[in-house]
Amino acid sequence: MEIFSKLESEVRSYSRGWPVVFDRAQGSMLYDENGKGYLDFFAGAGALNYGHNNPALKQALIDYIARDGVTHALDMFTVAKRDFLETLQEKILGPRELDYKVVFPGPGGANAVEAALKLARKVTGKESVINFTNAFHGMTLGALSVTGNSMKRGGAGVPLVHATPMPYDKYFDGAYPDFLYFERLLEDSGSGLNEPAAVIVEALQGEGGINAARLEWLKGLSDLCERHNILLILDDVQMGCGRTGPFFSFEDAGIKPDIVCLSKSIGGYGLPLALTLIKPELDVWEPGEHNGTFRGINPAFVTATEALRVYWSDDKLEQSTRAKGERIGSVFDEIVQAHPEANLVAKGRGLARGIEFASGELAGSVCAEAFDRGLLMETSGPDGEVMKLLPALTINDAELEQGLEIIGESVRAVLTK
Amino acid sequence: MEIFSKLESEVRSYSRGWPVVFDRAQGSMLYDENGKGYLDFFAGAGALNYGHNNPALKQALIDYIARDGVTHALDMFTVAKRDFLETLQEKILGPRELDYKVVFPGPGGANAVEAALKLARKVTGKESVINFTNAFHGMTLGALSVTGNSMKRGGAGVPLVHATPMPYDKYFDGAYPDFLYFERLLEDSGSGLNEPAAVIVEALQGEGGINAARLEWLKGLSDLCERHNILLILDDVQMGCGRTGPFFSFEDAGIKPDIVCLSKSIGGYGLPLALTLIKPELDVWEPGEHNGTFRGINPAFVTATEALRVYWSDDKLEQSTRAKGERIGSVFDEIVQAHPEANLVAKGRGLARGIEFASGELAGSVCAEAFDRGLLMETSGPDGEVMKLLPALTINDAELEQGLEIIGESVRAVLTK
Amino acid sequence: MEIFSKLESEVRSYSRGWPVVFDRAQGSMLYDENGKGYLDFFAGAGALNYGHNNPALKQALIDYIARDGVTHALDMFTVAKRDFLETLQEKILGPRELDYKVVFPGPGGANAVEAALKLARKVTGKESVINFTNAFHGMTLGALSVTGNSMKRGGAGVPLVHATPMPYDKYFDGAYPDFLYFERLLEDSGSGLNEPAAVIVEALQGEGGINAARLEWLKGLSDLCERHNILLILDDVQMGCGRTGPFFSFEDAGIKPDIVCLSKSIGGYGLPLALTLIKPELDVWEPGEHNGTFRGINPAFVTATEALRVYWSDDKLEQSTRAKGERIGSVFDEIVQAHPEANLVAKGRGLARGIEFASGELAGSVCAEAFDRGLLMETSGPDGEVMKLLPALTINDAELEQGLEIIGESVRAVLTK
Amino acid sequence: MEIFSKLESEVRSYSRGWPVVFDRAQGSMLYDENGKGYLDFFAGAGALNYGHNNPALKQALIDYIARDGVTHALDMFTVAKRDFLETLQEKILGPRELDYKVVFPGPGGANAVEAALKLARKVTGKESVINFTNAFHGMTLGALSVTGNSMKRGGAGVPLVHATPMPYDKYFDGAYPDFLYFERLLEDSGSGLNEPAAVIVEALQGEGGINAARLEWLKGLSDLCERHNILLILDDVQMGCGRTGPFFSFEDAGIKPDIVCLSKSIGGYGLPLALTLIKPELDVWEPGEHNGTFRGINPAFVTATEALRVYWSDDKLEQSTRAKGERIGSVFDEIVQAHPEANLVAKGRGLARGIEFASGELAGSVCAEAFDRGLLMETSGPDGEVMKLLPALTINDAELEQGLEIIGESVRAVLTK
Repeated sequence: MEIFSKLESEVRSYSRGWPVVFDRAQGSMLYDENGKGYLDFFAGAGALNYGHNNPALKQALIDYIARDGVTHALDMFTVAKRDFLETLQEKILGPRELDYKVVFPGPGGANAVEAALKLARKVTGKESVINFTNAFHGMTLGALSVTGNSMKRGGAGVPLVHATPMPYDKYFDGAYPDFLYFERLLEDSGSGLNEPAAVIVEALQGEGGINAARLEWLKGLSDLCERHNILLILDDVQMGCGRTGPFFSFEDAGIKPDIVCLSKSIGGYGLPLALTLIKPELDVWEPGEHNGTFRGINPAFVTATEALRVYWSDDKLEQSTRAKGERIGSVFDEIVQAHPEANLVAKGRGLARGIEFASGELAGSVCAEAFDRGLLMETSGPDGEVMKLLPALTINDAELEQGLEIIGESVRAVLTK
Repeated sequence: MEIFSKLESEVRSYSRGWPVVFDRAQGSMLYDENGKGYLDFFAGAGALNYGHNNPALKQALIDYIARDGVTHALDMFTVAKRDFLETLQEKILGPRELDYKVVFPGPGGANAVEAALKLARKVTGKESVINFTNAFHGMTLGALSVTGNSMKRGGAGVPLVHATPMPYDKYFDGAYPDFLYFERLLEDSGSGLNEPAAVIVEALQGEGGINAARLEWLKGLSDLCERHNILLILDDVQMGCGRTGPFFSFEDAGIKPDIVCLSKSIGGYGLPLALTLIKPELDVWEPGEHNGTFRGINPAFVTATEALRVYWSDDKLEQSTRAKGERIGSVFDEIVQAHPEANLVAKGRGLARGIEFASGELAGSVCAEAFDRGLLMETSGPDGEVMKLLPALTINDAELEQGLEIIGESVRAVLTK
Repeated sequence: MEIFSKLESEVRSYSRGWPVVFDRAQGSMLYDENGKGYLDFFAGAGALNYGHNNPALKQALIDYIARDGVTHALDMFTVAKRDFLETLQEKILGPRELDYKVVFPGPGGANAVEAALKLARKVTGKESVINFTNAFHGMTLGALSVTGNSMKRGGAGVPLVHATPMPYDKYFDGAYPDFLYFERLLEDSGSGLNEPAAVIVEALQGEGGINAARLEWLKGLSDLCERHNILLILDDVQMGCGRTGPFFSFEDAGIKPDIVCLSKSIGGYGLPLALTLIKPELDVWEPGEHNGTFRGINPAFVTATEALRVYWSDDKLEQSTRAKGERIGSVFDEIVQAHPEANLVAKGRGLARGIEFASGELAGSVCAEAFDRGLLMETSGPDGEVMKLLPALTINDAELEQGLEIIGESVRAVLTK
Repeated sequence: MEIFSKLESEVRSYSRGWPVVFDRAQGSMLYDENGKGYLDFFAGAGALNYGHNNPALKQALIDYIARDGVTHALDMFTVAKRDFLETLQEKILGPRELDYKVVFPGPGGANAVEAALKLARKVTGKESVINFTNAFHGMTLGALSVTGNSMKRGGAGVPLVHATPMPYDKYFDGAYPDFLYFERLLEDSGSGLNEPAAVIVEALQGEGGINAARLEWLKGLSDLCERHNILLILDDVQMGCGRTGPFFSFEDAGIKPDIVCLSKSIGGYGLPLALTLIKPELDVWEPGEHNGTFRGINPAFVTATEALRVYWSDDKLEQSTRAKGERIGSVFDEIVQAHPEANLVAKGRGLARGIEFASGELAGSVCAEAFDRGLLMETSGPDGEVMKLLPALTINDAELEQGLEIIGESVRAVLTK
């Protein structure tokens, strides 16, 4: 592994907790170069909702490559893109009565967010954006300015401006009414709040510590935006594509955001793809006003299309995600109750789950113990104090139970040291 | 094609000039869904230096996918990444005595630029960056702030600050000494120029109009940066990977930039990959201070590695690129001389070539005529007044001659209308 | 008055409500060019705490001018400045055990604020500042960025950044604990709040609507700043010099801010003068790093010195201000109770007093009625909904009672229309 | 003088070179507390064009104060303000056919500049402003952002943005055509220059080093602004009121700027007063959108009016200023020629004059020698390398000759050391 320390920048992070060299992967399993298998409860930080190298998608991908389907085509029309758009309309947007146009903003989630912010500002003529405490939206300058983590913000090297953080749901544990401060600032012409172009929000904050906003909070936020003529940007990069159950994480709240950001699992196979969905009346771009080299990699369209066909033609995946999520929830409740002195908190919805520990050190130790037992898990939250689970939605019951057992053991090992 | 106009945002651009649906591709040829072939002199805006679906890379890619090699692994260690790093060191960095560490900044060129700007600011504690007239560095907020095009800048929706443009080489046609203004501003403590953290520059501006900086200008810029303790960021996203002949576009100038941005063709096959190369003393990141989901897609590592092995083990590609470039140059000189009244200007170096017309309308008409004759070409420059050629470096002589013939005809057709 | 509408910009404001041409003034009386007298309950928006053309100061001023004392001397040493500094130390700083150094930041309150912000940022190396809802700190770009009023902010023409508003005392009528949100944001490293260099606050917001912060809130704020290593800037431009009773508006709260801004009445006679008082350890300026032409007009030093001697050698003025303030308070309570249907709210402390009406229209009408009855009063608050009293501290009882009577009549006239 | 070092901030500057305590002043003479006289060739950095305590103005001032004329009146209508406006129209604007409306932006020059920038941005909807190398416009955040001096800029504590410096006249000693770079950037839509709302310029840079722009350069700049629809802001704070001969420094260039900033000597007597003159079509302010406590101190109106009447009813002052300026110029030429090895450069126009030395150290030594001989002079320029003369316009010939003699001696003393 010498070449990594010699040649790769110190900015590398995940490899520090998992110091092995991975080679192959299948479903929920990653294998290192010596053939040792690891159960993956991280799933590409939410980019692998359908598991590693999902066989159905894999075949479509190999077929496409083998027949010399166009790989790279900027934003030209291609058969693969057409298939994807038609399938997206048929399987996702149509059935949910979501009237969106699709921007291909670039290869990753940060591009989806940058395009969303640009467009919201262009449409409204305002610069300011409201974000939320512990939000994570990406590492490019625009996306970083609406991200909460102070270490990551500090890396910007310029003051991050044009964003004002508001308290996310349950930030004060119900101690004061939702949006009390936010709405008061909006209504008070002397508040000093720059009038916002948009609000950007995650329905469940993954990096921020598996904070699941209540559905009524999301509905309240959507209503507030409508009342005050503020565009609502829903960043579904990590929580979309079924992570919390329904395809979009906001569906159960009964809202229709003005702009939706998708990436990570939308490509299906882990290949870079991102979408910014916008209400038709917001489609005021000039041709080429936002562009980029990797807007719509065709192999990713192929696997994305196949994933929508296989998993979103019915509600089986959604139901199984909800069920598995509840199973994790009940195990986590047991773990919490088994360690009353540790003040653990079980968090999450669907298959985005976590346990909050008293410190980042504890949560990190649990993940290290799990790694020793062959399970990959990461921490999140401002101080890394939340043990985070983002397993593949396609995980089977045996794997799930095995992972939960390892988690139970690891928590015990750490808390009873 | 109805689904495109119904569902895809008006921001789409290339599809407007080439209103067909592409399906397959091989080498320098793209085929539409009816099987009609187009000779591609655009090559993914420089992302396909080795041609579409290059057979050598294709087999490695299919093999990797077939054997369930890890696809998505964030910045974990993988066998595919190790192979890539070792090959990069062996074939590229080592032989050129370039002592760089590698940052995987995210999937695209804008990520490479954002990481470069962040790091330069962090290292120096200064915010300001010098860019050049007609620069293009990407569409995310940080990259856009150092990009010249006013339409694209206007899309930002916030004032783009922290960047000051300086005249690129030949901006005044030799009418005043290189760097006269820039260096004077640096030396004058009353100049009002914010002290710059870095200069960001392309050795040849592609989007800016195929403006090739003289090698002595690049050397002069590098010297100036050293004298004034300014970091030099060389954006080789479009012009690297052999586009102008040598692997890096700056090699012939005999300089070693502090930071180099690579993307587009580094992945070899058109899959998203980007690198930010940094001098070891600049490697001051905290782990995870810059991160992202798609930092290092393993299938792209596989094709990237294979491309380095196949094309950069010797200097054949470099020599053939130089030779083909000169061939284009001499044909372009003939075209220029054949239309003395049109004041055409032949531009470029290596296989980044262009002809400047009196207006964007004329250049656009030439591209339209070429499309009708089965050739794909785009315009660039602030007003789209430059007909731009970025053919695959692997183009064969017959294709090259055919394309040049079409260009000659198309220019004639437009200028003699 | 034609010359005014012809030659003076539309930005003029006070002259719109009081469309007469004033000529002479004495104590609490202003006289128009026809000799008609107006009782002045506005007192130069707090710049005339000692009344118009106070005889004691007037004589000193005329003497100084008559003997050709230096008028303008930039920041050179002068006898008048020395007298002022010695008197400030002897009468104000020394007795209060306030260890401050004096910056002469320019002629007005905005200069005092600009210097305070600059210094706080220089000392801490941070850009961000916390301000409060409905704050008013001035109209230059730095001061405006921490000011709340949206109309005034809109005039900036550039986005106002580097400031985040927090709720001022009683913003939620006690519905949630003081500083709950602010302190939570500071403690949460994922909150997205840029780490603040300083907090800037008024102990009583005049322009913001005569909002008097509770003393325990001010103490709490000071403690919070100390806990979090944030500099506390107390803007006493309008509320200092005895307006609320003690010389500094923050004295009763038992706090010692890091930086204090003074202007308006510090000159005594209405001549421009401003001070920024800074703790000695903050005095890190380079000579001339902040400068200006009108830093310390000597005639203003003369009247300022005289005012300190005459009014601050004992506590008579302070006691009478408190007493007069209470008299106004009790009259206002009666007014409030006399109009229960109008939901009036009596506000203020010392001789900064107000009555809040249901709308700006109502408050404006009361002021117009008062003007018709020979009393000058203005409105404040985000919608101008607060009738504001800032009478000279030297007002005599007869004048005070006469003014209060007019106010009572005016309120009745408006509310019983 | 102990109280100064104990109580006054280290930011004090002029007092460092002239460590005496001044008491009285008359005309061109300043007297310290021991009665020692100093010939003042600095004149309040241009605030005392009519000399210290000018007798004509003094009498009007004392009369006004004695009769209890209103002192402080915010922006209310007063007799003193009406007199001033009428006189300004009659003596200055009318005869020069300048159709301006008057904004009273606050007490000092920086306020005049802040108001100008605000208005230019509001009118155009653009943020960016073009300033010039070595410009000085003031120390508040908006004014500082267009100021050149790096030490003063560094004091801001936030990045100064929204301004791009262009080369002032003769910056390259005629080596390249005027405005070559500026106009090229404006015409090139890919230049990366943010479209400017305004250009701000001094006709002669005082603080920047007594750089007198050629009249044809000013005319060219004005034409360029008109061609490109950019507002021209002429900062005449230091060079207006006759400093270079005519009332406005730009008159001889035959231009009519869109906005003119006046302060310093406009008050006549050294009392703070500032004006922003704007073309009527720019008068788009809302009432109160820009305001402030010290907009129009009435004693300053009185002295300002008297100064206009006494000195601007005919062209005597203008002619004598030109003549005295030429006298200084010819003496300076002799000095330059007497020290050929020193490479001195005589600079300036009217009574803004300077000699540039090889270093700031030399220029400072000359000023120190002059002080020892009883003459007050300061340095300017980015490194303080210019000995600067701004004598009162009312200086008599004997004083002028005496001062020039001291200068000659002082230069000799330093250069022949």
